[in-house]
Amino acid sequence: MAESLEEVVNHSERLSREFNHIILKINNLRMYRTHTCGELRMEQVGQQVTLAGWVQTVRKFGSITFVDLRDRYGITQLLFGENLNARLDDQPLGREFVIQATGVVTERSNKNPNIPTGDVEITIADFKVLNAAKTPPFTLTDDTDGGDELRMKYRYLDLRRNAVKQNLELRYRVGRAARNFLHTQGFMDIETPFLIKSTPEGARDFVVPSRMNPNEFYALPQSPQTFKQLLMVSGYDRYYQIVKCFRDEDLRADRQPEFTQIDCEMSFVEQEDILNTFENMFKYIFKEIKGLDIDYAFPRMTWDDAMEYYGNDKPDIRFEMKLATLTGTVQNKGFKVFDDAELVVGIAAKGCAEYTRKQLDELTDWVKRPQIGMSGLIYVKYGADGSLKSSVDKFFNEEELKKWVAATKAEPGDLILVLAGKESRTRQAMSALRLEMGERLGLRDKNVYKPLWVIDFPLFEYAEEENRWVARHHPFTSPKPEHIALMDDLSQYAKIKANAYDIVLNGTEIGGGSIRIFQRDLQEKMFAALGMSPEEADHKFGFLLGAFEYGAPPHGGIAFGFDRLCSLLGGSESIRDFIAFPKNNSGRDVMLDAPAAIDQHQLDELRISLIKQDPA
Amino acid sequence: MAESLEEVVNHSERLSREFNHIILKINNLRMYRTHTCGELRMEQVGQQVTLAGWVQTVRKFGSITFVDLRDRYGITQLLFGENLNARLDDQPLGREFVIQATGVVTERSNKNPNIPTGDVEITIADFKVLNAAKTPPFTLTDDTDGGDELRMKYRYLDLRRNAVKQNLELRYRVGRAARNFLHTQGFMDIETPFLIKSTPEGARDFVVPSRMNPNEFYALPQSPQTFKQLLMVSGYDRYYQIVKCFRDEDLRADRQPEFTQIDCEMSFVEQEDILNTFENMFKYIFKEIKGLDIDYAFPRMTWDDAMEYYGNDKPDIRFEMKLATLTGTVQNKGFKVFDDAELVVGIAAKGCAEYTRKQLDELTDWVKRPQIGMSGLIYVKYGADGSLKSSVDKFFNEEELKKWVAATKAEPGDLILVLAGKESRTRQAMSALRLEMGERLGLRDKNVYKPLWVIDFPLFEYAEEENRWVARHHPFTSPKPEHIALMDDLSQYAKIKANAYDIVLNGTEIGGGSIRIFQRDLQEKMFAALGMSPEEADHKFGFLLGAFEYGAPPHGGIAFGFDRLCSLLGGSESIRDFIAFPKNNSGRDVMLDAPAAIDQHQLDELRISLIKQDPA
Repeated sequence: MAESLEEVVNHSERLSREFNHIILKINNLRMYRTHTCGELRMEQVGQQVTLAGWVQTVRKFGSITFVDLRDRYGITQLLFGENLNARLDDQPLGREFVIQATGVVTERSNKNPNIPTGDVEITIADFKVLNAAKTPPFTLTDDTDGGDELRMKYRYLDLRRNAVKQNLELRYRVGRAARNFLHTQGFMDIETPFLIKSTPEGARDFVVPSRMNPNEFYALPQSPQTFKQLLMVSGYDRYYQIVKCFRDEDLRADRQPEFTQIDCEMSFVEQEDILNTFENMFKYIFKEIKGLDIDYAFPRMTWDDAMEYYGNDKPDIRFEMKLATLTGTVQNKGFKVFDDAELVVGIAAKGCAEYTRKQLDELTDWVKRPQIGMSGLIYVKYGADGSLKSSVDKFFNEEELKKWVAATKAEPGDLILVLAGKESRTRQAMSALRLEMGERLGLRDKNVYKPLWVIDFPLFEYAEEENRWVARHHPFTSPKPEHIALMDDLSQYAKIKANAYDIVLNGTEIGGGSIRIFQRDLQEKMFAALGMSPEEADHKFGFLLGAFEYGAPPHGGIAFGFDRLCSLLGGSESIRDFIAFPKNNSGRDVMLDAPAAIDQHQLDELRISLIKQDPA
Repeated sequence: MAESLEEVVNHSERLSREFNHIILKINNLRMYRTHTCGELRMEQVGQQVTLAGWVQTVRKFGSITFVDLRDRYGITQLLFGENLNARLDDQPLGREFVIQATGVVTERSNKNPNIPTGDVEITIADFKVLNAAKTPPFTLTDDTDGGDELRMKYRYLDLRRNAVKQNLELRYRVGRAARNFLHTQGFMDIETPFLIKSTPEGARDFVVPSRMNPNEFYALPQSPQTFKQLLMVSGYDRYYQIVKCFRDEDLRADRQPEFTQIDCEMSFVEQEDILNTFENMFKYIFKEIKGLDIDYAFPRMTWDDAMEYYGNDKPDIRFEMKLATLTGTVQNKGFKVFDDAELVVGIAAKGCAEYTRKQLDELTDWVKRPQIGMSGLIYVKYGADGSLKSSVDKFFNEEELKKWVAATKAEPGDLILVLAGKESRTRQAMSALRLEMGERLGLRDKNVYKPLWVIDFPLFEYAEEENRWVARHHPFTSPKPEHIALMDDLSQYAKIKANAYDIVLNGTEIGGGSIRIFQRDLQEKMFAALGMSPEEADHKFGFLLGAFEYGAPPHGGIAFGFDRLCSLLGGSESIRDFIAFPKNNSGRDVMLDAPAAIDQHQLDELRISLIKQDPA
C-alpha cells in the first residue's frame, strides 16, 4: 500500500498544480475581459487588455488616479491619466464598484513585490462602470471592523474578504483531494435520499410534512448510515459521499443544524483495513493541502488508555503531560480531601516550578470556575535543585512526594498539579487543566498536526437523563465478538467493547466509524439491548433487518466531519468560517431571515396547524 | 478553446482508464480476500487465492460442484471437488449466500470467452459461509421477473442486478467527468444551504418546521439559484455544485420530489461564453462516457423557430420532418374544417405513401386520443409516381396539393399528414404526431445523440389558471436589453424575449439557464411585472436586492438535470433506474415505508398539530 500511496500523492500534486495554474488563465473569456486580475506579468507589457472586477482602492496623486482592481484571481493596478479626469469627475469610482477597463500593460516604476502582478500596471484608455456600489457596512479586510451579526447579515460581502475566500478555496481543495483519493481506491460516489423516514434514536430529526401523504412526515437524514449499509448488502463494496446531514439539536457554539460529512463504507473488511485505507486518505490530504509528509503509522490508543492518560476520548497528543492516577498512593495519609475522593489525579507541568503565589492562585481560581467545577488545586513545586515544596506539606513528606514525582514523571523544574474529587468530574477537570497548561506553555501549535486513532470504544454508554443504556456510536455498531455473550447481562454492559474507532486530530475528533453488525439475529439482540421492542425495531428498521436475511456481507465504515476537518486544516477554531452560508447559534440564517412564517395556504395544503406559544 | 478541450479530453481518458484499471485490483485487501471476483487471469494460475462474494449459481456435475461467485468487480468460477461434498451436504450453498473461499487458480478446460475471468477457475480447498440468504423474491437478472413495486420494496436486491449497477456506475462516471471538466475550467464546488426560506414562486416548497424558532419554517431549496447569484456578487466567479433540489409537485410519471442538478454560475460573461463553456462540457462528457467525438458546434435554434418547425421547445433533431404551416395556403377553399381553424399544419412522413386504409384509420384514431385531442387527420399520398391522392380531394385539386408538397418538402413516396384546429393544441398535436412517426420510422435511435441549444426564450408566459403573467424561466432571468422598454406595457409581454437558453438532447431538455438581472432597479421592475408588491419583493428577496447594491457583476448560469442526463446517456426512458433509492409516483419510499406518522412528542416539540382528513 505504501507504494501506491506515493503514486496517489504524485498524481495529486499534479492535479493541485493544475488547479493553481488554471485559475490564472481562464481562456475562454470573451466580451467582458481578456485577462483576469491575477494574470498579467512583464511578458504582457505592450499588450492591450481588458479587465473587469471590483474597485479595491482609489488613490489620487496629482492629476493621476490609481485604482487597485480585484477579482477572484488577484489584484492589478490601473492607472487613469489626466485625460480621464473629466470622466472620473463625472462618474467617480468608489470602493466595490464593478468596472471594466481597457488599456495597455505597462511596466511599473515602483514595483510591488508583494503581489504576483506587482511588476505591471494598466494604463487605462477607456472604462465603463458596470455597477455602482454603496459603501459596505464594514471593511472587507482580514481584520474587518464588522461584528458577527453584521457580517452574517451581509454574508455576500463578508465572503469577499480574502480570509474567507481562502477558507472556501481550502474547502474545495480538501473535498477534491478526498474525492481523488477515494476514486483511486475504487470508491463510488452514490447519492442517498434526503426525504427519508423519521427514526429518532439519539439526536432529534428534522421532519418534513408530506402534502401528498397527509399527516405523514419525511425526515431529513442525520446521516446516510442505513443506506450505505444497504448499498453494501447490494454489493457496491466501496461507497462514499460528501453529503449534507441534519440534526435538530440545541445548538452549542460552533454546531450547525446542517453539516457535511465525508461518508464512507466498505465490504469484506475488518477494522484494520478501514484504519489503513483512511489513514492513507489523511496522509494524502495532508500532503495535498499542507504539503506535509506523514511517514509514520498513526498511533493507536485504546479508549481506556485515552481516558486514563488524557482524561478524554480525543486526546491532544501534540504534547505529553499525561494524567497520573495517584488515588492509591495518596489516600490514608490523613488528608481528608484525598481520602474522600473517588479519584486523585496529577500532571507535571514542564518548567513551571517557579510559578508565583499569584499564578498559582489564578490557576486555582481557574479550576474553580463553574465549567471546571473543582473545589481546589493541590500543587508540588519540584525545584530545579531537586527540592520539593507542596501545598500539602502538612500531610505529605518528601518521601511521599517523591512517589508523586515518579507517577507524574515530573522532572526538576516542573510543577505537579493535583486534583481530587468525584471520578468523572475530576478526570474531566484534569483533562481541561492539561489542555490549558499545554496552551499556556505553547505546546498546542496549530501548525503541528498529530493525528491518532482511538480504538476499542465501549459499545454502550449510560444515559443518566433517560436512565438507560444507549448506543455509544449507533445501534449498528458491532460488539467485539468475544463480548457478545456479555450482552445477556445488564450488569456487564459497561465492559462491552465495540469494533469502533475515532480519528482524532490535535484534540478534536474529526471522524469515527465502526465495523457493523451484518447478521439479523445480532442486530435484533442489539435493538433489544437498547430497550426497543421487536415491533418497534421492525417498524423503524424492518428494511435493514430484512436486508440482512438476503446475503449481507461483513462491512464497516467511517464518516468524517468535513466542516471540522477543513477548519483544522485552515488553522481555525470555528467551522462557520468554512461554510459559505452558515447559521447562527439559534439556527437562523440572518441574511435570509430564515426560518420564517409561511402562508396559511401552505399550512392548509399540508394539513397542519400551529400551536401558538404561551405569551409567557 | 478547441486545443484546451482536447487536452481536457486526453486528461479525462487517462482518468477513465485509471478507474477501470483500479477497480480490477483493490490492493489493500487483507483478511477477507486476496483478490476480487473480477481480477484473476491466466497469469495467476498456480497461485493460492481467497475470494469473497455472493453465490450467483450452483451447478452440480456428478461429484463436482461449480459455483459462480460474484462481487462488484465480476464473476469467478469456483470448483468444489469431491472432498468437499460432505461439507456441502452439511451446509448447502444457495443463491445469494455470502461466502469466502480459498483455493488455487487453475486453467479451465472449457473456457468461457464471455467473461474476463473465463479462462480460469479456483479449485477450492476451504470455504466459509459468511452469511446465508433467503431466496430472493424475484430473479436478480437483467430480465427480472419482479414487478415495479416488489423491486422497489426490495431495492437493496434490485440494486444487485447488473443493469442497475451499470446505471449507477454510469452516474458516478458522468458526475466525475463533469467535476473534472469544471475543475479544469476553474469552477469551484461551493456548498449552499438546504435549510432556507420559503419563497413560493412557481413550484411548491417542501417546508421544515423549526423547533428552536417555534411556528417558523425552513424550506428545502428548489434550486440554489439565489445563493449562486450571491456567490457571484461575492466574487467567486465560477461556481458549481452537484446538488439535491426539492419540489413538492404533483408527481407525474418519472418525476421525483428530490432530484439532482449540476448547478453552475459564471461572472463577467455573456450568453455566448456560457454556451461555449457548457457545450465543451458536454463534448467532454460524450467523449468520456460514450467515446463519442462531437466535432461540430451544437446547432442553435431560436425558441420561435423551435415552436414553428417542431411544435415544441425541445425539438428532437435526430430527424427532419419539420412542421409546415399551411393555414394561409389552404383556407377559403370551401373546406370548413380548415376555414374554422386557427392553425393548419402538415408534415411529410418519409416513404409512407403506401399506408393502407387500416394504417391511416389507426393513425386517425391515434390523433383522436384524449392526450392528443384532435378531431381528425387529413392526409395526402404523394405516390412514388408523382400522383397525389388526398382525403380532401373534394376541396383541393392537384395544383392546390402541390403547394402542400412544396410547403412540407414532401418527396415522391411520402405521406403528408395535416392537422387543423386551435393554434396551441394543434401545434402540440402535430409535434406529438411528428415524434410518433419518427418513432415508427425508426428515426429516433437512442444511440444517436443530437444536442442543440434553444435560445431566445420568451421572458414571460401566461398562466391561464392564475390569470397572470409568470416568469417562464424564473424571476432572475434578464430580458433582452432591447426589450426592457416593453415591460411597461402589459400588451407587449408576449413579445419580450429573454437571454435564456436550454440545452436539448434527443427531444429532452437536459439543462437550462439564463443571463441574470444584476441591477436592483431592473430586478424590482421584474418583480413588479410578476405582480409582486414592493413589500412582498422585499420580504422574499430583500437580501438579493440588497446584494445588487453593493457591486454585483454581470453574471449568468445554467443547471442540468443530472438524473435525466444520466438516463439519456444510459439509453433509458426512466430516471428512476439511475437513482439508487427512488420514490414512487406518490412520493413514497416503499422500502422505508416513508413518509410515515411521527410521534405526538415530536409534534408537540415542533408546536404543530395535524388536521385530520375528512373521512370522505
